[in-house]
Amino acid sequence: MKAIIVKPPRPGAEITEIQRTPGKGPVLVKIVENGICGTDREIVNGTFSGAQAPPNEDYLILGHEAIGVVEKIEKGVEDLEVGDLVMPINRRGCGHCLNCLVGRPDFCETGGFVEAGITGMHGFMVEYFYDDPKYLVKVPKAIADIAILAQPLSDLEKSIEEILTVQRRVPVWTCDDGTYNCRTALVIGSGAIGTLVTLLLRTYGFKVIVANRRDPTPREKEIFFGVGAKWYNSANGYEELARDMGGADIIFDTTGRVDVVKSALTALRINGILGLFGFSEAERAEFTSADLKQLIYRNIAVVGLDNGQKPHFQQALVHLAAWKAMWPDVTSKLITRVVEINNKDTVLDALRHRSPGEIKIKISWQ
Amino acid sequence: MKAIIVKPPRPGAEITEIQRTPGKGPVLVKIVENGICGTDREIVNGTFSGAQAPPNEDYLILGHEAIGVVEKIEKGVEDLEVGDLVMPINRRGCGHCLNCLVGRPDFCETGGFVEAGITGMHGFMVEYFYDDPKYLVKVPKAIADIAILAQPLSDLEKSIEEILTVQRRVPVWTCDDGTYNCRTALVIGSGAIGTLVTLLLRTYGFKVIVANRRDPTPREKEIFFGVGAKWYNSANGYEELARDMGGADIIFDTTGRVDVVKSALTALRINGILGLFGFSEAERAEFTSADLKQLIYRNIAVVGLDNGQKPHFQQALVHLAAWKAMWPDVTSKLITRVVEINNKDTVLDALRHRSPGEIKIKISWQ
Amino acid sequence: MKAIIVKPPRPGAEITEIQRTPGKGPVLVKIVENGICGTDREIVNGTFSGAQAPPNEDYLILGHEAIGVVEKIEKGVEDLEVGDLVMPINRRGCGHCLNCLVGRPDFCETGGFVEAGITGMHGFMVEYFYDDPKYLVKVPKAIADIAILAQPLSDLEKSIEEILTVQRRVPVWTCDDGTYNCRTALVIGSGAIGTLVTLLLRTYGFKVIVANRRDPTPREKEIFFGVGAKWYNSANGYEELARDMGGADIIFDTTGRVDVVKSALTALRINGILGLFGFSEAERAEFTSADLKQLIYRNIAVVGLDNGQKPHFQQALVHLAAWKAMWPDVTSKLITRVVEINNKDTVLDALRHRSPGEIKIKISWQ
Amino acid sequence: MKAIIVKPPRPGAEITEIQRTPGKGPVLVKIVENGICGTDREIVNGTFSGAQAPPNEDYLILGHEAIGVVEKIEKGVEDLEVGDLVMPINRRGCGHCLNCLVGRPDFCETGGFVEAGITGMHGFMVEYFYDDPKYLVKVPKAIADIAILAQPLSDLEKSIEEILTVQRRVPVWTCDDGTYNCRTALVIGSGAIGTLVTLLLRTYGFKVIVANRRDPTPREKEIFFGVGAKWYNSANGYEELARDMGGADIIFDTTGRVDVVKSALTALRINGILGLFGFSEAERAEFTSADLKQLIYRNIAVVGLDNGQKPHFQQALVHLAAWKAMWPDVTSKLITRVVEINNKDTVLDALRHRSPGEIKIKISWQ
Repeated sequence: MKAIIVKPPRPGAEITEIQRTPGKGPVLVKIVENGICGTDREIVNGTFSGAQAPPNEDYLILGHEAIGVVEKIEKGVEDLEVGDLVMPINRRGCGHCLNCLVGRPDFCETGGFVEAGITGMHGFMVEYFYDDPKYLVKVPKAIADIAILAQPLSDLEKSIEEILTVQRRVPVWTCDDGTYNCRTALVIGSGAIGTLVTLLLRTYGFKVIVANRRDPTPREKEIFFGVGAKWYNSANGYEELARDMGGADIIFDTTGRVDVVKSALTALRINGILGLFGFSEAERAEFTSADLKQLIYRNIAVVGLDNGQKPHFQQALVHLAAWKAMWPDVTSKLITRVVEINNKDTVLDALRHRSPGEIKIKISWQ
Repeated sequence: MKAIIVKPPRPGAEITEIQRTPGKGPVLVKIVENGICGTDREIVNGTFSGAQAPPNEDYLILGHEAIGVVEKIEKGVEDLEVGDLVMPINRRGCGHCLNCLVGRPDFCETGGFVEAGITGMHGFMVEYFYDDPKYLVKVPKAIADIAILAQPLSDLEKSIEEILTVQRRVPVWTCDDGTYNCRTALVIGSGAIGTLVTLLLRTYGFKVIVANRRDPTPREKEIFFGVGAKWYNSANGYEELARDMGGADIIFDTTGRVDVVKSALTALRINGILGLFGFSEAERAEFTSADLKQLIYRNIAVVGLDNGQKPHFQQALVHLAAWKAMWPDVTSKLITRVVEINNKDTVLDALRHRSPGEIKIKISWQ
Repeated sequence: MKAIIVKPPRPGAEITEIQRTPGKGPVLVKIVENGICGTDREIVNGTFSGAQAPPNEDYLILGHEAIGVVEKIEKGVEDLEVGDLVMPINRRGCGHCLNCLVGRPDFCETGGFVEAGITGMHGFMVEYFYDDPKYLVKVPKAIADIAILAQPLSDLEKSIEEILTVQRRVPVWTCDDGTYNCRTALVIGSGAIGTLVTLLLRTYGFKVIVANRRDPTPREKEIFFGVGAKWYNSANGYEELARDMGGADIIFDTTGRVDVVKSALTALRINGILGLFGFSEAERAEFTSADLKQLIYRNIAVVGLDNGQKPHFQQALVHLAAWKAMWPDVTSKLITRVVEINNKDTVLDALRHRSPGEIKIKISWQ
Repeated sequence: MKAIIVKPPRPGAEITEIQRTPGKGPVLVKIVENGICGTDREIVNGTFSGAQAPPNEDYLILGHEAIGVVEKIEKGVEDLEVGDLVMPINRRGCGHCLNCLVGRPDFCETGGFVEAGITGMHGFMVEYFYDDPKYLVKVPKAIADIAILAQPLSDLEKSIEEILTVQRRVPVWTCDDGTYNCRTALVIGSGAIGTLVTLLLRTYGFKVIVANRRDPTPREKEIFFGVGAKWYNSANGYEELARDMGGADIIFDTTGRVDVVKSALTALRINGILGLFGFSEAERAEFTSADLKQLIYRNIAVVGLDNGQKPHFQQALVHLAAWKAMWPDVTSKLITRVVEINNKDTVLDALRHRSPGEIKIKISWQ
């Protein structure tokens, strides 16, 4: 059966025939489509150091964003039927630590978890795979067109949930009408993650300001203004935002750049929180003890955010459905391209390079 | 301008002309439609003891479920524009207790709150009213057809939120995949409230069993089975549910009948919670000290549930949007009838009697 | 070695020689003293239906309140040394459900837990026992005289923790100074449990009213007034408390009598909570649907409370230490009698009958 | 009446006679003793930029740590009597923001709060002051000798409460026995704050490692080893702690030095939290984007910690009482010196310089 495989740490990917259906469990899933994200490209380009084939195997099937259809199912499995659309959860627990035992390997303490298509477990860019219903999320067919976004969105659902949990440290962080409507979130970066988290924060009632070091493209205007967010051109830093726009109560960084984060921190209000979501490497910024003092005087929290689990996939699907109904002109712009698995070169090219303006690109298997 | 008024405690309602636009605040709202609920009918029929005109007025404008369009707006009001669809919040705080100060009069401690169309404040069955943006919730136009349901749904959003908060008393009440998918909620009653809370509990991932003392109607089958819920005929009590179906982790009562609740309690599992939502009056049930002991041995909680506020209205609208996308065949059945304000007799009749099978009936003003 | 054994469901207890040191684990504990509580007496008198010997054994060593000294310890055990004073935890988990896996068998969902000296596991009225350090709590020697109270107090620590967790359902349940000082707790019953929970609630800052159907004894006056609590003679019910004393925000029942609870509920304030702790059997009370409606209108919660675990034992010891320093005249009255294990008849008599005015009676083994 | 006054921003302090009793409210308090802390010295030495006299006054009475005795009381004040020992709360709210309205000016959002003896409000180094009972905490006389520590300890009570609230972001952060006994806290700095937080963390069940860049003094050994804490000589950084001692789940910094914090972060475990408590100024440290990535990969939170309020004062007193009973040899070492108000030069000298080994120094007024 056809699969897209990689052999980390070597760069490169190939679409090839494999002999054995990967995975285990009582449900056989036929793949419908995959999403491609930045991590896939880092693996394919050989720049993601954590990529690893499963134990005793010499290749890794790529792909951690997938939708499939239930093809066969063993007797006794409840809650799923042949023909159901499903998404597999990509991270699987270590089996030992308490967080993994309660189904939350996003907080695994041993580091012994695996990630499908990334490290230690085959991914889902393959015609068929077996799985356990515990790791399959049912997808409402009415939103099949955008449901692939539930995988990246699940990480953001978990992130906002974690941010709101941390903010319970503030006795009253809601507004005088019980909502978050008076609170402002600053989203740094306007890519796929910045886009999805903006929609999510708007859904929670926050005012949202999206920042990038330039003016928005026409498509960005349609998306961000279409959900009631504002745009901030951060080419000159964040002082204007802090001084004239009242600053922000949440800063959600999707860049991972420490220099950007340091600059944006000046705009974080009293009792605010900085969420770190993006990855970068080499930038530097100097902090002084006086910077730490500001975190204390202003009661600021910082939190590293990572990986959603099954509850977050499920909530992501609910939110995607809501967005499709509320903001059809926006959701129709989120899947920026679909490539057919049979167009090998196009697929492999898409796995190597991000297209300009790309939000989400899908590989279709059907 | 036209309004539907009552003069409690006298029964009866009339559609009449009034002189002064009710309400106060910088936003003038033109009514689009009202929903009718059981409380409206109790007021009209003179059986709701709490009904009361505003201070120094001799009539009460009825109506606490409403959607209107912003007609005029004073300068300086943010976040709203002429032409926006809005829903008014129906309960307004006492202005004194800490819960009201933080925008949560659902937990008012003084009892000094007012409720539009019910007690101490004019309602929204009137051509125009003034209001403060603090009490207006923006309605996405794409779901205008079902958005009136956000008012009753807001009470249920708050109820499930409160239930989940109470259940944090159990160290791990989620399943081994981090979701609520392994937990069962028993909803007693299949009316409007039972229907909406079933959809909501399904959205949170719970298995749901809807109970009534009969088999479901064809429409009930379409709705409840359409969202993956089960039906339980409780004509013979709840023993079969307790014995053969594993019982329930949540019992959500919409009947208010103490005899029904007592019978259903036998089906409540360890660490379970009973939510009380419905009202009734005269039924009786005898409890023994041994019944209390069962609440202790089984770590059971009971909680009285009432009234949603602005955050719950907002979340209700998000959920309605999601349902419209995910379950269009179900949501299309939730508005069971629309009556035109100009058909006076039909409107007044609808205010007196519930139609068989009614979920939500709307009065259209346009 | 000497042990106090029972053979449930037969009544009676005997002090006898047994052959094998009970328990398992790397720590050998020499018993110093046991506490006697109502459950012990119910087992001895044959009225506690749940009593059960361990699997494949024909007797049960009694005793779930104990302090011992570490006599021997296997290599590799951290955090304990020979000579340390320790208390064993009495309930041990089922090993399967998620709550037991995270160390909280007080919320065991399978019912498969055991309770030392009560059901399925030997107790601690025995010269020596083996145990795992996981189940041993280190006791500060400076409070050895009253430390036995940490076992019953652990149940109350957990109960108040659970009550406060449930009350997070109310957006603001603290006072305008951030404390609970403006909140009143009504404790029904002035026995050992009523006494300990009064001290605990005072420690949390609550005003406390202790109710019993008579005036207080001189000793009760010294204890309750000594910690700033009030007394309420409930011989004529709770209407006076509701009407003239402002009612209560917490009702903590230690009687288990449904008739008493029903009467006291009239005094429970808006947003209040009723905690059920005591056991009784045969009393009856009739509730109407209108009573349920009151729970809704007043946002009331009810919660069954049971069993503390290791975190609660540890906190109980901290609180006992605080009380010993703050209220020495009160804590000196809490151990009402000590009997020597060698006075067999006295011990067996104490296991059958509660002395008047008893708060805690200890069996000394040294 | 006698008072110790300063005239910020000018350095210097004087003991002088003032004409008017400061403060307002129905309770007149006669001062018994004050504590001196680092902030007092910074004000006296002119290095604390925030110091400010009350509006329209040209001097500021110093002192935010105080115990007094109730000298007179207006009719109608409950819960206090003439002769009671009391501590005044030092920070008072802005009167406007929601956090101040609910009694939590530690999270004031306007910055409009005042701090007695520091900014905008007279302090308590004065023979008498008036106050409102809302801001007075009753002190158990049995712990009068160490109760002055409740002021600095209140900040730490709040800090640990906030840390534990933030950590609820981790689904299971307790150990497999439900406690924190398996978690390690690293306290950086062994001064007064490091000492008090060590005792507090031990009370919560944490293992504690105290770090300083040298070996402990004999007194430090007695205190830290006496409560079961360990010592880590950090002269060579924190690598050994990370590598050989398993790292830490909490890092509690009392130095405020960004270079120290950066070095210690390498020892913070997965799901860990860094609490920032101390102030410093000029040190620098360079962070790279890869450092941020570590915060994400390891699910780390950072939180700025500041100021306890009335609930924390009350809990601090309970803990001090517990420590006095459990660890008498440790608590007897916490007050390192008492100076008499009549020895002007000694008092002024103590206000300028910290003695070597000082934990808490008191000024006695009687």
